[in-house]
Amino acid sequence: MPFELPTFYQILDFIGTLAFAISGTRLAAAKHFDLFGAYVVGVTTAIGGGTMRDVLLGTQPFWMTNPFYLVCSGIALLWVVVFRKHLVRQDNTWFLFDTIGLALFTVVGFEKTLAFGLPMWCAVIMGAMTGAAGGILRDVLINEVPLIFRKEIYALACVLGGVVFALCHKLGLDHNTTAVVAGASVITMRLLAVKYHLSLPKLKVEGSKEE
Amino acid sequence: MPFELPTFYQILDFIGTLAFAISGTRLAAAKHFDLFGAYVVGVTTAIGGGTMRDVLLGTQPFWMTNPFYLVCSGIALLWVVVFRKHLVRQDNTWFLFDTIGLALFTVVGFEKTLAFGLPMWCAVIMGAMTGAAGGILRDVLINEVPLIFRKEIYALACVLGGVVFALCHKLGLDHNTTAVVAGASVITMRLLAVKYHLSLPKLKVEGSKEE
Amino acid sequence: MPFELPTFYQILDFIGTLAFAISGTRLAAAKHFDLFGAYVVGVTTAIGGGTMRDVLLGTQPFWMTNPFYLVCSGIALLWVVVFRKHLVRQDNTWFLFDTIGLALFTVVGFEKTLAFGLPMWCAVIMGAMTGAAGGILRDVLINEVPLIFRKEIYALACVLGGVVFALCHKLGLDHNTTAVVAGASVITMRLLAVKYHLSLPKLKVEGSKEE
Repeated sequence: MPFELPTFYQILDFIGTLAFAISGTRLAAAKHFDLFGAYVVGVTTAIGGGTMRDVLLGTQPFWMTNPFYLVCSGIALLWVVVFRKHLVRQDNTWFLFDTIGLALFTVVGFEKTLAFGLPMWCAVIMGAMTGAAGGILRDVLINEVPLIFRKEIYALACVLGGVVFALCHKLGLDHNTTAVVAGASVITMRLLAVKYHLSLPKLKVEGSKEE
Repeated sequence: MPFELPTFYQILDFIGTLAFAISGTRLAAAKHFDLFGAYVVGVTTAIGGGTMRDVLLGTQPFWMTNPFYLVCSGIALLWVVVFRKHLVRQDNTWFLFDTIGLALFTVVGFEKTLAFGLPMWCAVIMGAMTGAAGGILRDVLINEVPLIFRKEIYALACVLGGVVFALCHKLGLDHNTTAVVAGASVITMRLLAVKYHLSLPKLKVEGSKEE
Repeated sequence: MPFELPTFYQILDFIGTLAFAISGTRLAAAKHFDLFGAYVVGVTTAIGGGTMRDVLLGTQPFWMTNPFYLVCSGIALLWVVVFRKHLVRQDNTWFLFDTIGLALFTVVGFEKTLAFGLPMWCAVIMGAMTGAAGGILRDVLINEVPLIFRKEIYALACVLGGVVFALCHKLGLDHNTTAVVAGASVITMRLLAVKYHLSLPKLKVEGSKEE
């Protein structure tokens, strides 16, 4: 993890965690979850992707010795309670923060996977998982079809970020530049996707026997 | 794990596992699962929380070298088959056994997490996960919104039990007393919650862009 | 893993992975997932069971150092896109390939669990999980009640295969014969189940308080 810029990194981490937790908390509230349930869904959205990554890497989940992420999710719950009538007006801000979180978590997941000696293509997958799997777990918990598989390009932006990271790495760019360029490419792709409603085509398949 | 009272501990463990498995088996049956599916949902309800805890702790899941829990779940399936017309009349008993299981699993999860050198707040979370996550996995498998996020206080009783455990520990109470007091507080809170229909407030949030 | 017949083993592995991924991709397409979502569901169906097994065994998931499985799932996606109007006509082929995969993955899961020094009964469970859990994860992701708990005998065929493996092992049959006999018994049971519409009885339970 990038200790060279602790403060800036921590601010981004806070912003991203908050945005992810708020997205989970809001959707849980919309499904009539109680406060505790909304908190659990918020936490799961925020730390689910990284937890899945750490379990697959065989290492201790990052949040188990650092209460930061659970406190963040608590702040997110409080925020939703206090500003529940104004959240729609804050949508653009939270979308931006969510995008920052997506980029950060992708880059962190990518780096951590490489640090475990795994190949580049695996780091691309694990980066995308770190960024996007929390939202999938959120949707499983609230019993909805995962949103990210149907709306504007989301997880693919993480994959792109991972590919950009791998390319910069091959080109011999220094670590900080690589991380910033990769993160910026996630953010750019996500912003473009939402601005121009870019989605991947849907598959149209005839009759599936198994259904 | 408390070896000082093996028999009593094992009886409670049996009762709790049975009650958890029966809850899963019944709900699966209500969704028209076949016998095998009902068994899988029963097992998942019984061992899911502890398995999740052990995976996060990076240790071998507790049931992999001890067939006790799978046999218990088999007995639960048999029980549901045999008494399928009388289960409603047994509801109070199974509710009580379920509550005993909730308390036991919470305390066991709390202790095991501490034994891995993790902080108190993490043990509180892992205790609640041990007690309540099986029920969440059950509801994911039967494709329902997790019940515990909407009904009377459930997982919060586990959190309370964890906090009581931590307090007793700080006060220097001996291990057995601490475990009993923490377990009793889970049971008390759950019984009060059901008797007086205590639920946490639900969040009311206006329009969520992401839905 | 059987290195004595690498080519034949790899062919079966390819066929099975392809069939599993295609089943996931098709069902995702039927639920209007985009191309990326369909790929993720395909991958999850193909590698989900083995990943769950490896996480429980505390070892690195098998696909993390071998891109074979992700490439296979990509081929599956391509196949579904190209042949989307002809998939129904290919149903019998894919059913057969799926059954081969089920048998192979069950046997591999059984052997790997034994190699970790775990008991026979645990290997039976882990073999069935390797074969059948990918399909459960698939159905959780597409927000449907898991099919394998309601249709013709599926996971039980894996359990039978595991029991046959254990019996052959006790009888002192050599390793290759044992693996082939166990795999054949999975395939036979599954073919018979589908041909004669063999299902397990469903549980009929009266009123469940928890619903």
